[in-house]
Amino acid sequence: MSASHSLDRNDLLAEKRSAFDIPEGVIYLDGNSLGVLPGHVPARLAEVVAGEWGTSLIRAWNDHGWIDLPGRTGDRIARLIGAPKGSVVACDSTSVNVFKVLAAALSLRPDRKVILSDTGNFPTDLYVASGLKTLLDKGHELKVVAPEEVHDAIDETVAVLMLTQVDYRSGRLHDMADLTAVAHGAGALTVWDLAHSAGALPVDLAGAKADFAVGCGYKYLNGGPGAPAFLYVAPQHQERVTSPLTGWMGHAAPFAFDLDYRPETGIGRMTAGTPPVLSLSGLHAALDVFEDVDMADIRTKSISLSEFFIAEVEARCPQLELASPRDPNRRGSQVSFRFKEGYSVMQALISRGVIGDFRAPDIMRFGFTPLYLSHQDVADAVAILAEILETESWNRPEYRKRSKVT
Amino acid sequence: MSASHSLDRNDLLAEKRSAFDIPEGVIYLDGNSLGVLPGHVPARLAEVVAGEWGTSLIRAWNDHGWIDLPGRTGDRIARLIGAPKGSVVACDSTSVNVFKVLAAALSLRPDRKVILSDTGNFPTDLYVASGLKTLLDKGHELKVVAPEEVHDAIDETVAVLMLTQVDYRSGRLHDMADLTAVAHGAGALTVWDLAHSAGALPVDLAGAKADFAVGCGYKYLNGGPGAPAFLYVAPQHQERVTSPLTGWMGHAAPFAFDLDYRPETGIGRMTAGTPPVLSLSGLHAALDVFEDVDMADIRTKSISLSEFFIAEVEARCPQLELASPRDPNRRGSQVSFRFKEGYSVMQALISRGVIGDFRAPDIMRFGFTPLYLSHQDVADAVAILAEILETESWNRPEYRKRSKVT
Repeated sequence: MSASHSLDRNDLLAEKRSAFDIPEGVIYLDGNSLGVLPGHVPARLAEVVAGEWGTSLIRAWNDHGWIDLPGRTGDRIARLIGAPKGSVVACDSTSVNVFKVLAAALSLRPDRKVILSDTGNFPTDLYVASGLKTLLDKGHELKVVAPEEVHDAIDETVAVLMLTQVDYRSGRLHDMADLTAVAHGAGALTVWDLAHSAGALPVDLAGAKADFAVGCGYKYLNGGPGAPAFLYVAPQHQERVTSPLTGWMGHAAPFAFDLDYRPETGIGRMTAGTPPVLSLSGLHAALDVFEDVDMADIRTKSISLSEFFIAEVEARCPQLELASPRDPNRRGSQVSFRFKEGYSVMQALISRGVIGDFRAPDIMRFGFTPLYLSHQDVADAVAILAEILETESWNRPEYRKRSKVT
Repeated sequence: MSASHSLDRNDLLAEKRSAFDIPEGVIYLDGNSLGVLPGHVPARLAEVVAGEWGTSLIRAWNDHGWIDLPGRTGDRIARLIGAPKGSVVACDSTSVNVFKVLAAALSLRPDRKVILSDTGNFPTDLYVASGLKTLLDKGHELKVVAPEEVHDAIDETVAVLMLTQVDYRSGRLHDMADLTAVAHGAGALTVWDLAHSAGALPVDLAGAKADFAVGCGYKYLNGGPGAPAFLYVAPQHQERVTSPLTGWMGHAAPFAFDLDYRPETGIGRMTAGTPPVLSLSGLHAALDVFEDVDMADIRTKSISLSEFFIAEVEARCPQLELASPRDPNRRGSQVSFRFKEGYSVMQALISRGVIGDFRAPDIMRFGFTPLYLSHQDVADAVAILAEILETESWNRPEYRKRSKVT
């Protein structure tokens, strides 16, 4: 029996694969960019479009609970990230949510000026922080250090420590509980971006005493392209902050149409405008798949898949150099390898149905989504990768151009 | 021949009705809150879900043009609001877009402190302005006057005149060209909210020399519940402003993953995070219906419908008092009437299939969407309204409770 076969026999999540529509001939190692389509979602969305919008029209806000959809979706996500009910809401994009929670966090530390982050943060978080700093014009400093320097850079000048838990390129995993404790010890607050964590590994926001968090709906949560993001505010901060984006959906009584803003009690105050109901319904429905899943099982399988992948690549593709931490406890659910011609190799892989992605200058990135990948998929993907590297088929002209989105 | 029959015979847009799925037994006079479902949209959305997301997965960003969808959708809206190509983008919610363009406008008038608006503005615009003022903490004043006082309140203290063109309650229409000229004469800039204008009447942003505008995708544009909103920046301002929400989609090279923000050239810099592709695709598809429509024909029919409605109501329902301007040139595409028991009457109407809405304390609001309403619909709606008022059937207990969303 092959190694992959034996590993797949012990896979507690094996039957979850049938919950997804995976295109024929595709081994999808990019669920960390855009999750695949859960099989029941098309019918559910068709019902939202024709049944709810088309038939109930404006009455659907009440009759089909659209008005509570951001909170109901947030509560489903809360369970996956160790957050209490009523502390998470699904709304807007991750970028917009970073703006909201960072502004809220800074408002609680008016005498401090440093936003501390690292070079492993997803760029949009840094852009948003920089834009907010410019807008506020109060002398804030955005201090960006190397990931391994974060711990020592936390001091009493820091207002907010803002980090993405899993590095989008290398998969390096920050210790949320430890860094949050250090930040709190220095009197700072924390904003955690869970874009590559939520649905990929167990997160314990409450246990780690995280203050604020944001995350993405369309990666490991499989909510569909551009699905609304989510945000978390720790219960003890909820009544002490307001959103800087004071839209009507965050008003205590949006349909009273008062001229003055009065924030809703609780997490709802962090919403802004009318939610994109179709996209949000897709995310809400996609979360069905997680209902009976234990995040510990996800983590076990994630590590099994990624360890198997590293072993196979290192055995069969000696040209590649591991760019992720070797210790699985220090990685998220993705593995990256460096190769000078990584761009072309990735294009050749994609043309053979093995979909990963590439990040300049030389990172080939592979995401492992335990709900719909098997060890056999991993073995097959590495076999194709080895074949491409051996034959230099990646060296063909068609693989050497860069498309707009890589 | 009845009056409605004769009016419908001259309706240039009559055949457009067949482009929409209107539920059996419903006369929908609330397209100003949520437009009805265009008949081709369910199939198009099913294709986006199963074909684009489900099959192309991450490759769909290039292969199906998701990356350009905000701009392509914006260009379709541009034609309807008198804006040049490349000056409109579809993204985020109206509330978030108000924040962006208001912050951008204020950045061009750093020495002025007054944001001038009126009590007819949709509340979320005022909430957002108030939130931005608090965030900036630079002594801005949000000055809110009565709609008829706006003209005289414009002076050289005003940084930005921020108005909704059509009052959401009364339908009162501001003269955009005139007020913009007065604002410019005083050195102020303008932000126009076209929530109840776009798709409802001809708008000429370029002709009026408007500086910034925002608007809603789910009302007269029929983009679906919570469809993304849009925003406009006049070409001469585009390179002089940046969005305060500097997300990666507004970056000149989002997939270069630079650590520093560099705004895209043109209107794209006003986008923030990843767009909700399903909801945005719904809006893009819904705009097909407008492709061969002349906004002048929409206006002609809109006035015909609303004039006929007012005449019928005043003839048959003397209890009601017109709450909209009598001059159709001073109205948008909606008509409101006051009635002390308006809430209960509206509930009774809705239970009979005539869907309008109610705004406290006593406004019954009826929207006229020329693409899918006939004069016969208007006649039938008024007949039912008259019947309800005559029999006092609205006085039943079930019509006297208030639901969460009215």
